[in-house]
Amino acid sequence: MPALIFDLDGTLVDTVYAHVFAWQRALAEAGLAVDGWRIHRRIGMSGGLFTRAVARELGREITTEEAERLQRRHGELFQQFLPERRALPGAPELLRALRDARVPHGIATSGRRPEIDRSLDVLGIGPETIVVERGDVLRAKPAPDLFLNCQQRLRVPVDDCYVVGDAVWDLLAARRARMLCIGLLSGGYGEDELTRAGAFRVYRDPAELHASLDELGVLP
Amino acid sequence: MPALIFDLDGTLVDTVYAHVFAWQRALAEAGLAVDGWRIHRRIGMSGGLFTRAVARELGREITTEEAERLQRRHGELFQQFLPERRALPGAPELLRALRDARVPHGIATSGRRPEIDRSLDVLGIGPETIVVERGDVLRAKPAPDLFLNCQQRLRVPVDDCYVVGDAVWDLLAARRARMLCIGLLSGGYGEDELTRAGAFRVYRDPAELHASLDELGVLP
Repeated sequence: MPALIFDLDGTLVDTVYAHVFAWQRALAEAGLAVDGWRIHRRIGMSGGLFTRAVARELGREITTEEAERLQRRHGELFQQFLPERRALPGAPELLRALRDARVPHGIATSGRRPEIDRSLDVLGIGPETIVVERGDVLRAKPAPDLFLNCQQRLRVPVDDCYVVGDAVWDLLAARRARMLCIGLLSGGYGEDELTRAGAFRVYRDPAELHASLDELGVLP
Repeated sequence: MPALIFDLDGTLVDTVYAHVFAWQRALAEAGLAVDGWRIHRRIGMSGGLFTRAVARELGREITTEEAERLQRRHGELFQQFLPERRALPGAPELLRALRDARVPHGIATSGRRPEIDRSLDVLGIGPETIVVERGDVLRAKPAPDLFLNCQQRLRVPVDDCYVVGDAVWDLLAARRARMLCIGLLSGGYGEDELTRAGAFRVYRDPAELHASLDELGVLP
């Protein structure tokens, strides 16, 4: 039976727009004006890659200290803007069903503890679930490391893993890991963008994925 | 020479993500949990249509007073989150070039004064430019009224009008007005979404549109 490896933000929790807006404000405070849509299309990369990409676009150098300061300020604003977390529709139920049916699954996120703890809480994810975070690997998405680390800890062959994500960076990282990938619209990308980036199926949100598991050969 | 009718938010000013997030918080405060991506895909409709669509999705009635309270709270949060306005790249330059070349053009927005005043200021739009706002027509986008009102005030035939917008609601309203339409990615829709909704060209932002005016037969 296939294993499922999930991205977190935008895939299981409804945090993308708060992240976009927190980045936009953090960058604006530092005198860096970046269009909202360009930030949105980069969410899901590691924070380090993100700040470098933004700086390149603005045509200026960004020091490591400046990048760290921006990431810290983003984190503060994110907490302030979105004090609570909210699971996307159907996400806790989907994860519970996978646990109950003993379908191998895990989380692989560019986020870090303790920032992601509240998201895991609201999803009902306990210590029995494998969670790979930014600090566990050298390179974040779109490198395949997070997904490969999760796959190894699940002890499932690469060919049996599906990656579920909302961003083209998830899909690119999945393809580099030689895994099949499923897109969700809940991060705000369009269906065609996800299909073109390699998703073999696109669902609206975790609830629709849950209702479609038999299409994927999961849960016989 | 063709005339250009512009949407405002997401097309000329970088406000879409602040609007999405202000709506999400206003709805959450009222106990209405709505996914960010679903809000994003509805921005650009009138506030009235928007709240009705949201309520229908949540499967509950929403009173006129409740809808008005939500719109008011959205306006407050929007001001708080985004105290300043920022033009999208190339927008003031594009509008100046159109004025200088005496290309007929106007603005047609689902927004209202005085909320839109700061956006018009930052774009350098003075009283010489025709601005059609929500209060000037009975029905907002996706009804064609805003664009038809602008076209009539420009005294240009419908066949000679291009609509420039970032949302599928702009494109739908433009097609209902029998006008050709151009999409911009600066509101965060994907290129295919805009093309499928009827855009005959899609550009990144006003700067790329400006650089492409000769493709459109504007400015000989």
